[in-house]
Amino acid sequence: MKLARYRKDGQTAIGLVEGDAVTRLSGRIDGIGEDMIALIAQWDALRARIEGLAGGRDVGLSDVDLLAPISRPGKIWGIGLNYADHVAEAAMETPSHQSWFVMAQTTVAGPFQPIERPRASGALDYEAEMVFVIGKGGRHISEEDAPNHIFGYCVGNDVSVRDFQFHSGQFSIGKSFDTHAPFGPWIVTPDEIDAKNLPIRSFVNGEKRQESNTRHLIYDPAKQIAYLSQAMTLEPGDVFFTGTPGGVGAAMKPPQFLAPGDRVRVEIDGIGFIENIVVEEAA
Amino acid sequence: MKLARYRKDGQTAIGLVEGDAVTRLSGRIDGIGEDMIALIAQWDALRARIEGLAGGRDVGLSDVDLLAPISRPGKIWGIGLNYADHVAEAAMETPSHQSWFVMAQTTVAGPFQPIERPRASGALDYEAEMVFVIGKGGRHISEEDAPNHIFGYCVGNDVSVRDFQFHSGQFSIGKSFDTHAPFGPWIVTPDEIDAKNLPIRSFVNGEKRQESNTRHLIYDPAKQIAYLSQAMTLEPGDVFFTGTPGGVGAAMKPPQFLAPGDRVRVEIDGIGFIENIVVEEAA
Repeated sequence: MKLARYRKDGQTAIGLVEGDAVTRLSGRIDGIGEDMIALIAQWDALRARIEGLAGGRDVGLSDVDLLAPISRPGKIWGIGLNYADHVAEAAMETPSHQSWFVMAQTTVAGPFQPIERPRASGALDYEAEMVFVIGKGGRHISEEDAPNHIFGYCVGNDVSVRDFQFHSGQFSIGKSFDTHAPFGPWIVTPDEIDAKNLPIRSFVNGEKRQESNTRHLIYDPAKQIAYLSQAMTLEPGDVFFTGTPGGVGAAMKPPQFLAPGDRVRVEIDGIGFIENIVVEEAA
Repeated sequence: MKLARYRKDGQTAIGLVEGDAVTRLSGRIDGIGEDMIALIAQWDALRARIEGLAGGRDVGLSDVDLLAPISRPGKIWGIGLNYADHVAEAAMETPSHQSWFVMAQTTVAGPFQPIERPRASGALDYEAEMVFVIGKGGRHISEEDAPNHIFGYCVGNDVSVRDFQFHSGQFSIGKSFDTHAPFGPWIVTPDEIDAKNLPIRSFVNGEKRQESNTRHLIYDPAKQIAYLSQAMTLEPGDVFFTGTPGGVGAAMKPPQFLAPGDRVRVEIDGIGFIENIVVEEAA
């Protein structure tokens, strides 16, 4: 199942994506409004009713504006250095533990929304990433049980401002600029894909920059959930960026940072793609 | 003005603290329910009406349970290495830039709520900190204008799990354990204090561990707001932990970590104090 948030005729809704069409769920099922987190939290009660509406195909996919599937996740965590080729290009060592930072809520952007080159920096870079969303919350979730806590997967771009990222050694500021966490285009439930084996690529203006497969993740989502839930309660709708493969702009020789007008596309087979145009931050 | 969130007779309310009494605001003024962020966002419209209720003194302060002033801040940022004596004891260098990490929302705790020694670690430590809360949001806020964006101040304890904090170099995980961001006991508006010159202390079981003054902050709140708002939009109710002075348990020789039964108190003259008992994380 593919669940999307979208705008159509000035209204925000949640819908089921079926091929080239969308079936509206909001307003048809009690408990489904505009808030994807509320839907996720009630998933066990709602799933069969949602499946019952399949085939409605109210509107063409190309006639809606897709939004970030979750506008205000309770948490957004991102992991660094989680593909061997990216560790090598960053001239870092593979960390002995998972290397997590948190992003501010305000950094979320839609799957086709422009991303800003900030006034404060020109060192703007992309990071193609698989994203997962927590379904059933919990703490002390074992690696074995972790897959039962994943609601679904998205495509993400962990847009990074490299100078701010390395100002102090703490990455969060460089990952928290407004518009720098586009993800989507929808949430794909785990039954539709094999998340352990998905080709992932990024392109800038059509030129391939990153190409890998989620099977090369050093720490997979199950290990990520097991590690993080030692510390904190995970909740429905929490969002996790799972790391980027080699090929980022900062590692090119010379470095190639993003500039206004650049078109950045991230795609993951089985999930979909997102594409964001770089614009100057408004004055 | 001192604004608190509290429980009384099974109800959560916002009130005005006046000496040893509380004047309930919730239910008496349109727009004031249980949510402090909503109050902060409407402050300009509500302030005079709140002042008009002063003197009501509905209930004794000792008869209410004080809660975290904001239960779910949109963002919680914490700065590291922001007092010279703490930089020295940590055997670090003064960073050339502000060193910020983000904490997960789920780490918030009340000013007198127990804090957990987690199952995953015994390296539990305290950090006495002044906390400020954003009033009027914005981006690209200058250092000069920053004071106009501060709604008020609290006392905080940036409870830290030292081994997790240093697992990878990214501090966020060690700062994001459940119950590890107690703050309160209320929010004091800026007109009541000189936030640039407040004595701050911490005690463990009555033994003084930290003693400094907010005038020793390397980067003060105005500089903090100017730096962070280059990157992101600050919003009403966002919470900032401003750094801890020397004297943390990890720097004692030998290190003294917190154990169940320990009572940790943080006090800032002019704001108040918070006090949290350490308990084992429930099995």
